[in-house]
Amino acid sequence: IQSKLPKVGTTIFSVMSQLAQEHGAVNLGQGFPDFPVPAALVAALDQAMRDGHHQYAPMTGVPALRQAIADKTLRVYGHRPDPDAEVTVTSGATEAIFNAVHAVVRAGEEVVVLDPCYDSYEPTIDLAGAHAVHVPLDPATFAPDWQRVREAITPRTRMLMVNSPHNPSGAMFSEGDMRELEAIVRDTGVFLLSDEVYEHIVFDGRRHESVLRYPALRERAFVVSSFGKTYHCTGWKIGYCIAPLALSAEFRKVHQYNVFSTFTPGQHAFATMLQAHPEHYEQLGAFYEAKRDRFREQLATTRLRPLPVPGGYFQLVDYSAVSDLDDAAFCRWLTVEKGVAAIPLSPFYEAPPPGQRLARLCFAKHEATLDAAIERLQRL
Amino acid sequence: IQSKLPKVGTTIFSVMSQLAQEHGAVNLGQGFPDFPVPAALVAALDQAMRDGHHQYAPMTGVPALRQAIADKTLRVYGHRPDPDAEVTVTSGATEAIFNAVHAVVRAGEEVVVLDPCYDSYEPTIDLAGAHAVHVPLDPATFAPDWQRVREAITPRTRMLMVNSPHNPSGAMFSEGDMRELEAIVRDTGVFLLSDEVYEHIVFDGRRHESVLRYPALRERAFVVSSFGKTYHCTGWKIGYCIAPLALSAEFRKVHQYNVFSTFTPGQHAFATMLQAHPEHYEQLGAFYEAKRDRFREQLATTRLRPLPVPGGYFQLVDYSAVSDLDDAAFCRWLTVEKGVAAIPLSPFYEAPPPGQRLARLCFAKHEATLDAAIERLQRL
Ligand SMILES: CSCCC(=O)C(=O)O
Ligand SMILES: CSCCC(=O)C(=O)O
Repeated sequence: IQSKLPKVGTTIFSVMSQLAQEHGAVNLGQGFPDFPVPAALVAALDQAMRDGHHQYAPMTGVPALRQAIADKTLRVYGHRPDPDAEVTVTSGATEAIFNAVHAVVRAGEEVVVLDPCYDSYEPTIDLAGAHAVHVPLDPATFAPDWQRVREAITPRTRMLMVNSPHNPSGAMFSEGDMRELEAIVRDTGVFLLSDEVYEHIVFDGRRHESVLRYPALRERAFVVSSFGKTYHCTGWKIGYCIAPLALSAEFRKVHQYNVFSTFTPGQHAFATMLQAHPEHYEQLGAFYEAKRDRFREQLATTRLRPLPVPGGYFQLVDYSAVSDLDDAAFCRWLTVEKGVAAIPLSPFYEAPPPGQRLARLCFAKHEATLDAAIERLQRL
Repeated sequence: IQSKLPKVGTTIFSVMSQLAQEHGAVNLGQGFPDFPVPAALVAALDQAMRDGHHQYAPMTGVPALRQAIADKTLRVYGHRPDPDAEVTVTSGATEAIFNAVHAVVRAGEEVVVLDPCYDSYEPTIDLAGAHAVHVPLDPATFAPDWQRVREAITPRTRMLMVNSPHNPSGAMFSEGDMRELEAIVRDTGVFLLSDEVYEHIVFDGRRHESVLRYPALRERAFVVSSFGKTYHCTGWKIGYCIAPLALSAEFRKVHQYNVFSTFTPGQHAFATMLQAHPEHYEQLGAFYEAKRDRFREQLATTRLRPLPVPGGYFQLVDYSAVSDLDDAAFCRWLTVEKGVAAIPLSPFYEAPPPGQRLARLCFAKHEATLDAAIERLQRL
């Protein structure tokens, strides 16, 4: 059988988690927290189960959750999407990205992505029969070169995918970036897909530049987020997409026949969390900022050089003082021989910058986990 | 914006559930149970949560669940798929159907479906850029005309979709059907998608003819099932796909970048249910058979004529003694004016048989719910 996705292998996140397990490595690879979920979330789920919410949710999502998402969006970004027409609950952000692409991108069209980018983007575009056009971010700062983005847009471009806070680098768009983005898409038929799953994990007083803040952007955007990142439960697989009516209508056609609906009791639980515990997402930045600062202090005692982390829960480190290996080989060696699993950056690129010596460490971990990793990294 | 899926509207199941709610109708439309989930399932979920299983499951599914599925398959159908290579856990059967089609069907190819068929099949095929070729089942018995199926297969046919027990009719394939199917696909490159979500809901001592029992069929098949139907929790959205190595490999490429993984605590809970409580699925046929028999006795007191129900949890009724309306109009009238929501059959067809006067009633309900519906139906 000839593969429709010949380039696709097992995702690097599964590969490294598996390797970590086989070798008893501390797993700072795949991005997930290893500390407990909020007690209030488990309590809210228990309540939803006691309330008997076990059957199909509405295809678009439980109304209370869609309303809570709309209210939160107003509160945080100053814009309230219509919960009935513009908010759709999905089985995680990945499904939302998949649906958005399949909803509007046609065979033969182009989608512009900024490298490094999350590894689901290109296979999703491929499966829609379209072509990913890769524009590199600055290899040192991971800032976009908007002139190059502008040049990448052709009459065949249907979508531009952006991601801030950025995985893997943690880089964040500034207000200036948003103005550039506005200028670029104005007078084009290009849709935006804005992957904002780390929206609440931002540091040092920065403001998350959600596409939802900008009328000229949100009118053409699918904005995707995830509860897994915000509530420390990546395995619950509930996310959502906010998009204007016409785009949501197309998005829902795909969602309706892709998964139809999402774990009902969990939707009720997140409605409760958003409404009754806004402090959770409000304090998430401070929570992770403390982890980041502590981890970076510890990294200063190793031969790894940490890059700045404006947002998200990943720390990039330059390992060139330690090894000449390319990043894939280095991360394998670090996992197998040194007992710390990390993610190489090359799988996030069409063409990795030659000589780049960066690895990604996830600091969404117990202090004890990070301490154990640091102890091992100090021996490098 | 020009739709990629211009024919798709809101699914009939959502439309009728919404209408039922607006008009306070007893909802026998959309297929879902209204009685509690098994206490053991809630307990197993609680245990999984206490065990802290809140992060990403492996992309292919929690190992204990894949093993439990393989063991159950051996126990029930005499064949054990390789849990590592051939079993993939999905966000419900709908996602599994979507993935299977997108994994192997290419733009311009054909997929044969047997009408009436579940309403996700055709949009899924459309989205892959392929064409659904509709072969009608017998309008009275819902048995396949295998000669017509054979004639529908062309060099462009990539897949044939089958469904037993059948939604909406409850019809089931016989061993003779399976032999016909073997003969038809032998020496072709046609893949099978076998939708077996009602596998454990079979009546009157019948045997479910799973494709997994037949080596010449399963070697080319995606076999899809669902825990929602078996454990009375359609809102949990966990299902799975069993397929041989080469097909599972392609299936997983789509799954990996579509939803990646599925609600982790629920996967652990179903592993427990399959292993510790096999009596649940063993007794499910008897459980629903009692409901079916009671409901049919009650229907005999109305002017609706019930058709036979070999399996599944739907009862087709011929309403021609009551009304001349077409089925869509009749089901609206029944919901709005008579207070009982039903599903028309026409949305399951490319070309509904002219003059067909059938509606689908779901009997996966409390006795009190069915009693209330019958009381209203007696007034027709
Ligand atoms: C779906 S596994 C990958 C999790 C993640 O977002 C990451 O590690 O970047
Ligand atoms: C996903 S809603 C439809 C449920 C169902 O399988 C049916 O009613 O046929």
